Formats: sequence, structure tokens, C-alpha cells
Amino acid sequence: MKRLIPAGLLLAITTAHAAEGMWMPQQLPQIAKQLKSAGLKLDPSRLNQLTEFPMGAVVSLGGCTASFVSPQGLVVTNHHCAYGSIQYNSTPQRDLLKNGFLAADFKDELPAAPGSRIFVTEEVKDVTAQVLDAKTAALSGKARVDAIEAKEKALVAACEQDKAYRCRVAGFYGGLQYQLIKQMQIRDVRLVHAPADMVGRFGGDTDNWIWPRHTGDYSFYRAYVGPDGKPADFSPDNKPYQPKHHLKLATTPLNEGDFVMVTGYPGRTQRHRLPQEVDFAFSFSQPTGIRNMLTQLDLIKQETSGRREAEIALAGTVAGLGNASKNMQGQMASYAGSDILERKRKSFEELKTWVNSDAARRAKYGADLAAVESLLAERQALARTESSLRAYAPRLLGTARGLYQNAQQRLLPDAQRKPGYQERDALRLRQGLESQDRRYDAQTDIRLASHFYAKYLAQPAEQLNQPLLKALGLKAGMDEAAVKARLLELQAATQLTDKASRMAWLDRSVADFAASKDAYIAAAVALYEEDERIEKRDKELEGRIDQAYANTMAALLAFKASKGEALYPDANGTLRVSYGHVQGRKPGTDGNDWLAFTTLRGITAKHTGTGDFDAPEAQRKAIEARQFDKYAVKSLDSVPVNFLATLDTTGGNSGSPVLNSRAELVGLLFDGTLDAVISNWDFNPKMTRSICMDARYMLWQMKVVDKADRLLKELNAL
Amino acid sequence: MKRLIPAGLLLAITTAHAAEGMWMPQQLPQIAKQLKSAGLKLDPSRLNQLTEFPMGAVVSLGGCTASFVSPQGLVVTNHHCAYGSIQYNSTPQRDLLKNGFLAADFKDELPAAPGSRIFVTEEVKDVTAQVLDAKTAALSGKARVDAIEAKEKALVAACEQDKAYRCRVAGFYGGLQYQLIKQMQIRDVRLVHAPADMVGRFGGDTDNWIWPRHTGDYSFYRAYVGPDGKPADFSPDNKPYQPKHHLKLATTPLNEGDFVMVTGYPGRTQRHRLPQEVDFAFSFSQPTGIRNMLTQLDLIKQETSGRREAEIALAGTVAGLGNASKNMQGQMASYAGSDILERKRKSFEELKTWVNSDAARRAKYGADLAAVESLLAERQALARTESSLRAYAPRLLGTARGLYQNAQQRLLPDAQRKPGYQERDALRLRQGLESQDRRYDAQTDIRLASHFYAKYLAQPAEQLNQPLLKALGLKAGMDEAAVKARLLELQAATQLTDKASRMAWLDRSVADFAASKDAYIAAAVALYEEDERIEKRDKELEGRIDQAYANTMAALLAFKASKGEALYPDANGTLRVSYGHVQGRKPGTDGNDWLAFTTLRGITAKHTGTGDFDAPEAQRKAIEARQFDKYAVKSLDSVPVNFLATLDTTGGNSGSPVLNSRAELVGLLFDGTLDAVISNWDFNPKMTRSICMDARYMLWQMKVVDKADRLLKELNAL
Repeated sequence: MKRLIPAGLLLAITTAHAAEGMWMPQQLPQIAKQLKSAGLKLDPSRLNQLTEFPMGAVVSLGGCTASFVSPQGLVVTNHHCAYGSIQYNSTPQRDLLKNGFLAADFKDELPAAPGSRIFVTEEVKDVTAQVLDAKTAALSGKARVDAIEAKEKALVAACEQDKAYRCRVAGFYGGLQYQLIKQMQIRDVRLVHAPADMVGRFGGDTDNWIWPRHTGDYSFYRAYVGPDGKPADFSPDNKPYQPKHHLKLATTPLNEGDFVMVTGYPGRTQRHRLPQEVDFAFSFSQPTGIRNMLTQLDLIKQETSGRREAEIALAGTVAGLGNASKNMQGQMASYAGSDILERKRKSFEELKTWVNSDAARRAKYGADLAAVESLLAERQALARTESSLRAYAPRLLGTARGLYQNAQQRLLPDAQRKPGYQERDALRLRQGLESQDRRYDAQTDIRLASHFYAKYLAQPAEQLNQPLLKALGLKAGMDEAAVKARLLELQAATQLTDKASRMAWLDRSVADFAASKDAYIAAAVALYEEDERIEKRDKELEGRIDQAYANTMAALLAFKASKGEALYPDANGTLRVSYGHVQGRKPGTDGNDWLAFTTLRGITAKHTGTGDFDAPEAQRKAIEARQFDKYAVKSLDSVPVNFLATLDTTGGNSGSPVLNSRAELVGLLFDGTLDAVISNWDFNPKMTRSICMDARYMLWQMKVVDKADRLLKELNAL
Repeated sequence: MKRLIPAGLLLAITTAHAAEGMWMPQQLPQIAKQLKSAGLKLDPSRLNQLTEFPMGAVVSLGGCTASFVSPQGLVVTNHHCAYGSIQYNSTPQRDLLKNGFLAADFKDELPAAPGSRIFVTEEVKDVTAQVLDAKTAALSGKARVDAIEAKEKALVAACEQDKAYRCRVAGFYGGLQYQLIKQMQIRDVRLVHAPADMVGRFGGDTDNWIWPRHTGDYSFYRAYVGPDGKPADFSPDNKPYQPKHHLKLATTPLNEGDFVMVTGYPGRTQRHRLPQEVDFAFSFSQPTGIRNMLTQLDLIKQETSGRREAEIALAGTVAGLGNASKNMQGQMASYAGSDILERKRKSFEELKTWVNSDAARRAKYGADLAAVESLLAERQALARTESSLRAYAPRLLGTARGLYQNAQQRLLPDAQRKPGYQERDALRLRQGLESQDRRYDAQTDIRLASHFYAKYLAQPAEQLNQPLLKALGLKAGMDEAAVKARLLELQAATQLTDKASRMAWLDRSVADFAASKDAYIAAAVALYEEDERIEKRDKELEGRIDQAYANTMAALLAFKASKGEALYPDANGTLRVSYGHVQGRKPGTDGNDWLAFTTLRGITAKHTGTGDFDAPEAQRKAIEARQFDKYAVKSLDSVPVNFLATLDTTGGNSGSPVLNSRAELVGLLFDGTLDAVISNWDFNPKMTRSICMDARYMLWQMKVVDKADRLLKELNAL
């Protein structure tokens, strides 16, 4: 599947194919030759040294990627990655979302949204032998899940002896291999600079996943540590963190055909999924998900219309729903009429034939290969039945359930508690509860819950979950108005909307909960037994699937190896490296060829003054006056804004630094294109392009429009 | 300004410039050489023979262009040109708008919307000497307007002695020249075939004015005449009209670089406007118009949401508002930051300098050139003051005013009546009143009127029109709710919502009106004196402007002639010819190159299943199955859908046949691109492209998807 093209050739042709592969750093020495011939000027072996330049400068924000760009802990990432923090600091009176933010000095830098973290990966260790020892590997069902969980918790606990670190055990190849990842966790994160909304989000949902693109998707954070240099909670006494390495801006101009690479934390791909999973995703779970998300967007719009405070509170939710639904729609469009499922089925049949053609292989893999499909079918049947129940629940019910689960777990020794409820999770739990109001609008929440519950209650009564109905006082057949009336009663009878009341439950006992008259606390207590039953049921099934699935993946690896083919693992939120070239696409969409770069001209052309295309006046004036400063590119007769590159990336890569052949910063990755999002399931080397923001656009906007001289000086860019 | 490029060269380069010029047929012999070298294979002199092929096959629908395409009077035009008739025949039960329509036989063809006409131009005669005789040319003010109007009416009356004809006097070069145009008027027009809405309108407002495009913008009418072969009102006894000429489908494939031309009825361009008019348009009237239209669209959407009947009734209005506002926004975007005004000012200064540098010229033009600007300023000041009053009025108030004006005019001999109220206008007036309900929704109308009146009434009381307030019972400072309450009272006290009651007023006397208690009739009577006063005031000013303006245009023509430059007149709804080539554009939009053709692949790629991108399932299945029939183009690996051509066109050209070098039909013109709509004011040869529907797409859809075999046979395309 890999189609690498010699660098010399690449410069001549513009129909270059994207290079498949989100490589684990430790795999890079294996592809050193390809990297060199693609144009990398750095020694490839430097790329697997996590604590050296440039890898030491690349950090995770948990869900996004970022990088250090100054010795003073300045961090650059996407605007949409810092969106929650910009939103958190915005009010209708001081609308940072709309107007942007520029701290005049260190002391003016604003605390990021509670729970914001910067994770610096310092060590990655293979722990497969410990997690999956012979005894565990033989287990199935809930026993297997519990055993693996216990081993993971023990490894994590040992790793986190030093409180500065956050550790995680990540599974690769469907639970066949495990790595322990050790990350320094910086807890005092501050917002330094964000451009105006209509720079950072120019084009909005309309342009999301679309080329040509003109989005200034950048923002700056700063990492702060205690006076002792170690991670600390926010304090005025904290100082900027001094990273061992930081990225430097490119000193040579970026051109079409140039080598580029990204290092980052891609979230999830599904390239090694079984045909049955592909079928289920595209025939059921994605269409259902899209429908639910579009309904939510519609209802949120209705309920927040004209209420700017509610709009701000739900802006992040709306952005997330818009993004995810458009991505899924893009996947559905590429999947429709494609031969993906057919090819997946054929590959799986080939695997089965290979396994069954040899007695030893049949003995080792045969039973699991035969079992995995019916096990998956079992899980899918449950998902179908319960999907409309899981579409939406009142936010405060979730809060109450989490609080009661916390009280229950605190009865156990820390090591035995469920993940998410251990001592190491306490702060995150507390910060989540604290910041909840900022992202909550009661009116909208009740409308959404009423809508989805009414749909659920319209099903035949015997299919409904009686414990849930009883706990919430709902009845089969209730219409939306009736559900709403009931939810308003619950809302009137809960204190969880009040922050102090909510926080107080963190320290209360199970008995306190049982005695409570708070409507949602009482509902959570009433539901606990049922919730536990379902969790156990799911764990039992999951354990059975995991065992068969891991062995199926082992068979697949063996089959590939027998043909001399390597297999990189699906993305799982761990550090990866992709590489490719700056390159347009022919054809782009039907009737278009895509050029590699967009320019400031496109901003003026797209500007309508309304909706997603309302560029700030100061910016438009600077463009009209051709105030390009030193950032113009002669062949473009303007400043480059975004560019396309043949890079294999996915969600989670957002904010990743795009580096040139000398590992200098030339841009930030922020998107893919809608007709290639299917690559998450089935890589398409001809169509796949990543959309990157050109660093020259960011610097132009900061210098000419936003006058961010303090930061430009820190970036050595004045 | 004209930039013709030799045809040989054109085939080699793709940055061909559009050829400026919407030529009057009688001008074509002057450009015969250019036409030939561009690739026309027909004798250019045939193009000015209005009653010969191909010109005899091209007809006007009043606002759109169409053409005969069979000996049985079959007419092809754009879907958006037949939209009113499709809408008129649609009900929620039989939703032709959504599903399309295909008459199984002649007897199933449906009457088009009342008032629908097919106009066949048979004669064009210069009547400048009659209209603007020495005495009239010397007049100014209302006297001038009245004198010209009287001459025009007399010419039209003489021309229309034969009732089969409709005649019109059109002014050219700002009232400097006049032509009498004689058109056979076919009154029995029937709807034969329209594709599904999401073929004919695929892409909707989102794609309007946008490339790449995938719109099947075609529909078929048929012209019917009486048993005697003459135009007649609808009757089951009527027979299909047999045109002397009709267009034939191309027999050779259309390729990029090929010569194409369009003949049609472009509505209005403003290429010779004075700088002051340009400034006023872009600083006031267009921004105001855009704001009002967007508000109307928003309110219509709110009021019709969930009421499919109201949605159907206002579908045409919504389409029109969407189209016009997007066009104006496109003009505004191109204007912003451009040097158009500066160049216009410079040209006008040059003209003044030329006039004043010679005593004879100064004597002839000097005074008018000096006066025209202050006269225009006077009209603009009035427009500013009264613009918010004119933003919207209740539909029934307009109906009542028209009916009362009609009663007043009927007191006069026919020749003295105002244009629009003569005997020749009676049928159109009647049909307009009859069909009113189909395009009216009371709830929306009242909401719109309440909104705009409330805005008007918020102005200082002394600026308000007291007769209007008194006639409608409105008061300064009323808010929207109060206005609405008042309009609901009026609505409850009028019979004009009832068709029979409405029609009855056509025959009543002025005294009947004066005695009426009907709320809107009474308001119209009360407003009559004020309406007349304003009309007289406007005519007086208009006459003063017209005189100065015509002489300014005469100076301009003389100035151009002194430099050896020709000047074609601005578009004015009369028959014109444009020519150019099939050609993409580099660059297209920023970050894109535009290819000349789109294909069926783009429909699948754009399809989302919602909103403007919901291609019918049958079509999508045919595309997925690659059922291209004989319509595929090998180099495209698909059927071409739309194409770009370097043609100078504007609104009114919609539906124009696109002809190849042998005057065979290769497509229908239906749109321009948003970044070139500014060409209406300032032709941009590099950017201007017209968007055309490829005939092969229409034939493919008709044959493979819609099985329109009867029509294909009639088109000789089976």
C-alpha cells in the first residue's frame, strides 16, 4: 500500500501521492532511507530521541498537539484547540471569542480553562510482557478486562510516583501490544494570544474540511511551573517554564514540492478494522450519529438564538458537533458506492483461508477468527437497541451519576478503584465540576433531553428501560411537552446547578447520597444498581471480544509478515511522525484543480460581512493596501495563507507543527479535506491532503494587523 | 476595451479573455471579421436576419430567453425561468417543484402560470427621429417625459393594430436613440417537462454564481396557437405552434477552446453610468438593498417554517431574493478596494475637459454636463429619504392602489391612459390579480410589513409621510407588535384576499371606490392624491435628468468617435448576440484553477442528502452504475454537466441557447460567476466567464433517469 515517490521526481509532477503512515518514533530508523530520499536533511535517528530536538519540543494538549516555540515556554497550537480557553475567558462584555486576545505582558496572560494541561512525552516503554503475561492472555470475559486493568493501574501508579508526571498504558494492534507512556504534566497553562474569531475561525463550518481555505487557525499558550521549576497548580508566583528544546521559525521560504513532516498525537484511525465493523459503522452508527448531531445543532441554534451568553457557553459544543458531523458526512459520501467493504471482506477471507490452510495456524488462530464475528454481532445488537437511549441525557443527571460513582469508589483502596475515580483523577474531576457552568445552558439542555427522551419513549413500552423511567419519573408514550414538564420539575428540585452545592458532593458519603432529596442525586442513587449491571455486562462481552480480537490481529500480523509486509499500528493518541510534500491536487473537486497555496486575496474574495465570512475590517484594510511587510511571496503576489501537503494525519494532529527538511517551523496542521476523511478507514494515497496554516500568514497577521510585537520578539521574528 | 484573441492562439492558451460586447444584431456586420476569426462557420450576415435561422428560433419569455427546438413549438429554457409555472402547478399533494414533471402526451401539458408569454421578435426599427423630434428634444421636465410617452404610445398602438403582436419602444444610450420592437406574442404557453427540483436547482442558493457547478437548469414549454395558427388565449382546441425555424442539437462534441455564441435578451447593464451614479449605487442603494433582502429572506423563513403550502407560495420570491442579494453582494465584494470609481471619475473629467476645450462643443454639451450631476444628486437625496418607506408594503395595499389607479385611468380615452393601464394591458392586469393567491401568504406578508413599517415609524415624526400614516391608521413610534395589530385589523376588514371580490373591482367606478368600506380600497382612495403628487414630482425631475443625461451620452459618443472608438449600448432587454469560447480560468478562486467542464462525479461528491445538495436517488444510482449511455466524454471519463465560456452576458440571458460555430445547440446559458458580476458596471475581460449547462447532461438525465422518450424523439435525440 505504501507509495513513496523519489524526491527528485516529486518536484516535477503535481499528482504526487500522499505517503501513508503515522509512524511510531521507534519505527523511524526502519524508514530512514525513505525519509532521506523524500528530502529530510536532519539525521532520521534524531527523530526517535524523545527528549532531544525536535521531538522534545512537541507536546500534547490532550486531544490536540502543540509545540514550544520559545525558551520561555511559549506554546503554539490551533485556534480551535485553544477555543475552550478563549471561550472560558469570554463574556458578552469582554468578548474575547469575537475580538481576539493579546496579553500585553506576562502578568496579563489568562488562566486557560480549568483542566487544561500540557503533556511533554519523556519516555515510552514496551510493557506487553507485563500487561499480557501468559495467565492474563489466557483469560476471557470480565476477568480478562479486570486483570488487564489491574496491571495497567499498577504500572501507572509506579510511573506516577513522581507527581510531576502523568502516565498511561496504551494498547496497539487491537490490544496485542502495550506501551507505558510517561509525560510531564504542566498544570498551569495560560492563554497568551488568540486572533479575532473571524481570523482564527474564518470560513467556519462552511469551509471546514474544504479547500481552498483561508483560516488563521493559531493561538498561543504559555506553560508555567512553580518557583522550583516543577509542574504546579496556578499561582501568581509561578514562572514561565523553560523547555529543554523549542522550535525555531524557518529561515528559508517554503515552496511547492518541499519536504514537510508533522509530529503529533493523531487520535484514532480504523485502518485494520474487520469488515463487519466497517459495515456496522457505515450502515448504522455513523448515519445515526449524524442524525443526532444535526438535530442537536438545530435545537441548540433555536434555543440560544438571541441569547449571546448561552451562545458563548455552547460555542465549543456547537463547534465540536459541526466538525464531527461534517467529518462523518464526508466519510459517508466517500463510502457510498465505493468498494471498501468488498475489499475488506476479500482481505478477511484471504486471512481465513491462510489460517485454515495450515494445521498449526488453524490451532493457534482458527477458533478466535471464527468467534470474533459473532461476538462483534452481539455487541452491535446491543448498540442498536440502546442507541436512542444514549442519544442525550440531562447534563445534571450525568453530573449526579459521576458524583455518586465517586462516593462509591472512595469506599475502596485507591488501587482498586475504577479508572477515572482514583486519587490521580481527583483534581480533574474537581476542575470539571467547577467549570461546568461555563459550558452549560439549562434551557438548551432541557430542550435537548426532552426531544431525545420523547423519541425514546415513543418506542413500544416493553422495550424501555424501566429503572431509568422510574428514576426520572418518565412514562412510556410521553410527548416532548410532557417530558419537558417533568424535567423542569427535576431542575427545580436540584441544587446541582449551584457550583458550591455541586462541589460539596465530592466529599459526601454513600449514606449522604442515599438520604438526599436532591432530584438528580436521588435519580443517580436509584439508577446505580442498573448502571453497575450494565457495566458488568459490557465488560464481560468486551473481554470476550478483546481476546478473540487480539488473536485475530496476531493472525493478521503473521499473515502480513509471511508476505514480507510491515504493518504500522492504528492511531491511538500516541506520538507519531508523518511526512510528505507541499503539493496541490489534480483534480481537486470536480471542475477544479487545487493549487498548493492560498493567499490574502482569497480572504477579500470570500468576505461577505456576515456569518462565517466576516473578516475584521483592520485586516481587510491591510490587505487592500497591500501591506505585505516581509511576508509576501513574489510568485503569489501576496502573503500565503494556507497550504496543502501530502501528509497522513487525523484528528488529534490538530495544532501539530509542520516542519521543513531542517525541522524548522513552517506552519501548523489544522485540517484534512472532506473527500479524504474516509482515509481514517481506508487510506487513499491519491486524494489525501492535509490542510496547513502557513507560518508566514500568522506572522503577517500578528505584525501588520494585531501588532503583537512582544510575541514576535520572543519568536525572534521582528 | 475589447480584447479579441485570434482563435488559433485561443486553443493553445487557457487564460483567454472574455470578449466584451452584447451586440445588437444590426451591429454584427461591423464585427464579421472578428466573428469569423474567432471560429464562426456560419455567414455572420445571417445573424442579423431576425426572421431567419438561427435568430428566428430565439424567443423571449419576458425576463428570460428561450428557443424553439422542434417543429411542434417545443421551447427549451432554464428551470429557474420556468420556476413560476412549475410552482403555480404544485400543491403539497402533487409537488411538481420537488418531484419534477413530465407530460405523457400533448393533452397532459399544463397551462403555465397566468401571464406567461412567448415573444418572437419579428421586426426592429429605429424610431429616434419620431420619438425625439426637434420639439421634443428641446423639452425638459414633466413635459418632456409626457411628450416622449405620448409618442411611444402612438407608435406602439399603430404597431399593435394586429392583435397578435406586442410592441415596445426601447431607449438606447440613456435615451439618445429609440427602437420600435415588434414581437409576436404567444399567449397559450404550457409546461411540458421539468426535472426534479434537486436536478434543476441542484446546489441551490449555496452554489448560485459559483463554479464548479452541477445544475441541470433546463425545462420545456410548448407554444400553442388557435386553430387559425394565430396567438390565442388558452383553449383545449388550440394546437402546437409551428415555428418557421428551430434549433437542432449539435452533432459534433463540444470541447474546450471551441467557439460558442449566445443570442438572447440581456436585461440591464450599467457600463456607461456616470461616476456619481456608481458611487451612489455602491455606497447606498446596493448595501441598503442587500440588507432589506436578507431581512426579508430571514423573516420569510421564520414565518413559513413547517408550512409547506406557504413555502411553495413564496418559493419564487425566496429564489428571486436569494439570487439578487447574492449578486449584489458579489458586486460589492469586487467593488471594495477596486479603482472603479476612480477610473470612472477620471474618464468623466477627461470628457469634461474635451468638451470645454472647444467653444462649439462647450456650447452644445457644456450646460448639460454641468447640470447632470446636481440633478442626479437631487434624485439621490429623495431616494435616501424615502428608502425605508419603500422597503416593503402590504401586498393588498399595492393591489388596491393598482385597482383604484385602473378605475381612474378608465375615465380617460385609451391613448391618454398611463402605460400599464391601457386596453393592451387589461389581460395582464386581470391575470396578475387572478394568480395572486398562489404567490401570497398573508401571515408572512403581515410580518414583513410590520417589521419594515416599525423601522420606518421609529424615525423622527416630522420625517414621516403623514398621508400614508393617516390612510393606514399608523402612528409615529409604533413598535412591530403595534403595527402588526393594526395590519391584522386592516386584513380583517378587506375582501381583497378573496379572488372574486378582488376581480370585481376591475369593473367598478371611481365612485364605487370612494364609497367602499373595504380597508385597503379605502386606504388606496385616501392615498391617491399623495401618490399622484409624488408621481408628478418624480416625472418633473426625471424629465430634467433625461434631457441632460441624453446630451451627456451624446457628448460621450462624440468623444469616443473622436478617438476612433465604438460604443455598444448598455443592455436594455432587447435582442443581443455575444460570442466567445469554451474555456476554464486560471486562477479560478484563490487556491483553485477552474477547469472548463464539470462532470457527474461532482454531483455524487456534493450530495449530502440535505438542503441544496440532495440529488435524487435514481440519478445517483445511475451515476454510481456509470450508465453514461452515449453521452460520456472519454477525456472526462463521465458525462459533462456544466461548462465555462468567455461570453459577455447578464440577467435576462438566462435560458439563452448556447450555439456552436454552426449555430447548433450545445447548451443553455444560466449563470455567471460571483467575482465577475461587477462586469455589469465595469467589464473585466480576464475574470468574466458565463456558466452554461451542457446539452449532453440534459439529454442524459432525460434519457437515463427520467425516461423522457417522447421528448427525446421530438428533439431527434433518440
